[in-house]
Amino acid sequence: MKAIFYHAGCPVCVSAEHELLAMIDSAKVDIESVHLGERREAIEEAEAAGVRSVPALLLDNGNVLHINHGASMADVKKV
Amino acid sequence: MKAIFYHAGCPVCVSAEHELLAMIDSAKVDIESVHLGERREAIEEAEAAGVRSVPALLLDNGNVLHINHGASMADVKKV
Repeated sequence: MKAIFYHAGCPVCVSAEHELLAMIDSAKVDIESVHLGERREAIEEAEAAGVRSVPALLLDNGNVLHINHGASMADVKKV
Repeated sequence: MKAIFYHAGCPVCVSAEHELLAMIDSAKVDIESVHLGERREAIEEAEAAGVRSVPALLLDNGNVLHINHGASMADVKKV
């Protein structure tokens, strides 16, 4: 199973990433971490996948788990 | 490591619970699931721990991961 963790480097994002990684079974889930501030070309693909705010975890069944609230996608575009 | 998944039986909660449980390493994390609609006495303890909406995962370091948004705690009290 593959999942993409989208974030923007904000403290809420970093904290959520550490906590998720500590819990997730790396034998079952292959997580890619994408920093939208550094990879701005990925913003459009993230939005198309349903990411409304970061941090968020996009699952390979198409569902998005939005975790806490670091920044809206509108804010990410201003970074 | 122990974590408590608070929910109110809503579709957003049930979906998030299934997806988290599929990813989490049960050898590392012992997850208790608490349905606040059925265990109303736990609402106060959840709020005191910082749960603002459900579904949410309370970690044993005291942090709360709010996942998507099923219902605010104000709504849970009206259930």
